[in-house]
Amino acid sequence: MARAPVIEFWYEFASTYSYLSAMRIEEAAREAGVVVRWRPFLLGPIFSTQGWNTSPFNLYPAKGRYMWRDMAREAARIGLPLVRPAPFPQNSLTATRVALLGADEPWGPQFTRAVYRTEFGEGRSIEEPSAVRAILETCGLDPDVIMKAATGDANKTRLRALTEEARSRHIFGAPTFFSEDGEMFWGNDRLEAALAWATGERPGDLR
Amino acid sequence: MARAPVIEFWYEFASTYSYLSAMRIEEAAREAGVVVRWRPFLLGPIFSTQGWNTSPFNLYPAKGRYMWRDMAREAARIGLPLVRPAPFPQNSLTATRVALLGADEPWGPQFTRAVYRTEFGEGRSIEEPSAVRAILETCGLDPDVIMKAATGDANKTRLRALTEEARSRHIFGAPTFFSEDGEMFWGNDRLEAALAWATGERPGDLR
Repeated sequence: MARAPVIEFWYEFASTYSYLSAMRIEEAAREAGVVVRWRPFLLGPIFSTQGWNTSPFNLYPAKGRYMWRDMAREAARIGLPLVRPAPFPQNSLTATRVALLGADEPWGPQFTRAVYRTEFGEGRSIEEPSAVRAILETCGLDPDVIMKAATGDANKTRLRALTEEARSRHIFGAPTFFSEDGEMFWGNDRLEAALAWATGERPGDLR
Repeated sequence: MARAPVIEFWYEFASTYSYLSAMRIEEAAREAGVVVRWRPFLLGPIFSTQGWNTSPFNLYPAKGRYMWRDMAREAARIGLPLVRPAPFPQNSLTATRVALLGADEPWGPQFTRAVYRTEFGEGRSIEEPSAVRAILETCGLDPDVIMKAATGDANKTRLRALTEEARSRHIFGAPTFFSEDGEMFWGNDRLEAALAWATGERPGDLR
């Protein structure tokens, strides 16, 4: 039997549309017969290079105002709760380190969904280590063991390398999906197109 | 019989994704039983306020690079040709004045589609008055009469007012759609959602 196709799912905990993708990607990928590799990374360093010191949704108020309304519609459409956290964006460093530690194990995606549920489903903070520890506990995981490994030098270095990889692969926002042939798709709206591409479906004359 | 619902279609000739919407909105709206009001406007003054002196796709190269690839996929998906014009973005002032003059008559949308076909379907210039005149001729319209009215004071003032209206309604990009109750949808990807909203369909718990 042929190996199942793979897509990479690059996400940032401060990203609202990444929340929508994180909550629905497993089911959508399973239906398409595609395997998901979870890639939690930091957009902050990439935004800094563009001269942005916060979310573009804060820098450009009209765009931010629209984004929250669009998020309300899109979350309602797929049946997800939406509560805006304060401050927005949340500092995602600690949560991202933990998610990366577990990225290739079943608990990583489980933890990721729990973070997003806390942050955008309930509007609660994910910033402090204590908040991250509490989320780990709700997942039935050991906060002491995981926080120690997540904040160790090896994992910190791995996150820096992954964020540099994001930059070198021209990622400029989240969520971003890659198929194995390097085709890039940006935004929750492109999840279905990314899955179709991964299974060999090409639109129109793009072969 | 009840009056058909209406959506406004705000578009900018320099906008790539507006091309996709312009070419498919009439058929999509007819199927949904919705009437389209065409609203050609200028994004330049709005971008200037944000400190942008050209297209964000030029200011942010990673985003621009992705946009052209995404446009290639999306155009192929709906069966439209795509050729990148040089320079990009094209100066759209003259074409926009003409499109506005005809916005509420059948020839306006026809001219709009012909402009987009020239610009993004064939990659040819729409900047010079001579280019706009040639497009009018291919539509079977009288360039002398139309260019005179389009560049007259009344129509110039109308375009400035419409662009100010765009700003006051918090438009930040194109295409943008409005339903009659003021709900805003941004991007070609939201055309279907805008049409559904106009006909009274609301996602989830947004009533």
